Amino acid sequence: MQIAIVLYDRFTALDAVGPYEVLSRIPGAETVFVAEQAGPVRNDNGGTLGLVADRTLDEVDRPDIVLVPGGPGQIAQMDNVRLLDWLRAADAASTWTTSVCTGSLLLAAAGLLDGRRATSHWLALDTLPEFGATPTSERVVFDGKYVTAAGVSSGIDMGLALLGRICGDDHAMAVQLLTEYDPQPPYDAGSPLKAPAHLVENARAASRFIMS
Amino acid sequence: MQIAIVLYDRFTALDAVGPYEVLSRIPGAETVFVAEQAGPVRNDNGGTLGLVADRTLDEVDRPDIVLVPGGPGQIAQMDNVRLLDWLRAADAASTWTTSVCTGSLLLAAAGLLDGRRATSHWLALDTLPEFGATPTSERVVFDGKYVTAAGVSSGIDMGLALLGRICGDDHAMAVQLLTEYDPQPPYDAGSPLKAPAHLVENARAASRFIMS
Repeated sequence: MQIAIVLYDRFTALDAVGPYEVLSRIPGAETVFVAEQAGPVRNDNGGTLGLVADRTLDEVDRPDIVLVPGGPGQIAQMDNVRLLDWLRAADAASTWTTSVCTGSLLLAAAGLLDGRRATSHWLALDTLPEFGATPTSERVVFDGKYVTAAGVSSGIDMGLALLGRICGDDHAMAVQLLTEYDPQPPYDAGSPLKAPAHLVENARAASRFIMS
Repeated sequence: MQIAIVLYDRFTALDAVGPYEVLSRIPGAETVFVAEQAGPVRNDNGGTLGLVADRTLDEVDRPDIVLVPGGPGQIAQMDNVRLLDWLRAADAASTWTTSVCTGSLLLAAAGLLDGRRATSHWLALDTLPEFGATPTSERVVFDGKYVTAAGVSSGIDMGLALLGRICGDDHAMAVQLLTEYDPQPPYDAGSPLKAPAHLVENARAASRFIMS
């Protein structure tokens, strides 16, 4: 089984590395980071993190699992024909096509979520209907072979849920134990329904500024 | 403020990237991945992930925050004099000295946790007393300027807790909201107290095999 994690300039690192840490523990799986060009790809946060794409998109044409992270760099990829063509071709042969955060907007832009239920970062949910997808507020959404996760850290939950489908509950729980994923956030502010209202409004305002 | 995240061969990626995603959002902070040599450093999982160290240890001698991830590669670093010397020197000037997972064993080997309460991956807790540290089963342990986190994913909780200390609760909650850290693991098996007993025993047996 081959797992391809797609990188592009200004992706969000945890979107990719969270599910990587889980899914790469599928026995016998080959996990490969891919991008248009091989070499380090810089993240959204001032480019202070560089993750190496070991293969080009062209070199990985039939992955079993496709995983697309999100990040502010997603906006610049929405009309990247080469990437969208690759996503369509890879999806045609994949067993699972997945995303974290605004990665779902790239799947949607490739036409892969038309008529499907999906999720994204909470600030981006309203964009999904423009591509025929039905947004949901669930953290991890399975619709057939399409698995989309909410913002950034949700990719860990998505990875574990998908691992359970592929390898069974015991293996998924063993990986949860190994990664000591017993979350104890010091605050309860991880969703717009839980965070203080002024922080939600600040985030919406900042988002409108970025998107405009 | 400068944050230095230490990389070494066969580190665990999420140990580093979880707290990176949070702490790099300290306003005005410079976050830098460091290693003995600059360039891509390969992780524990077959080396399928390469994270770029942009600076050498020698180039970053007075970070405000030191963060040491864990991973099976930690074992080979326990007598790496160059790394341990760097940790001692960096710690002498740091505001916070932190670790995730078995990264705490490197802090301990450098003599920095002597007489302190600390944590580590649950499979490694018993090693801490060999270096004069008192292990606890808390997920995130503050003892003065020393902050240690439990296994792998706990670095996210540590990062948020530390962010709150440095920037205040509002900023930490804003980052939690931005990263949509509202964890909903599909299983409740993330600690040895919660996972099925046979999985805990399997993990202990595998660990003994690795350490022997």
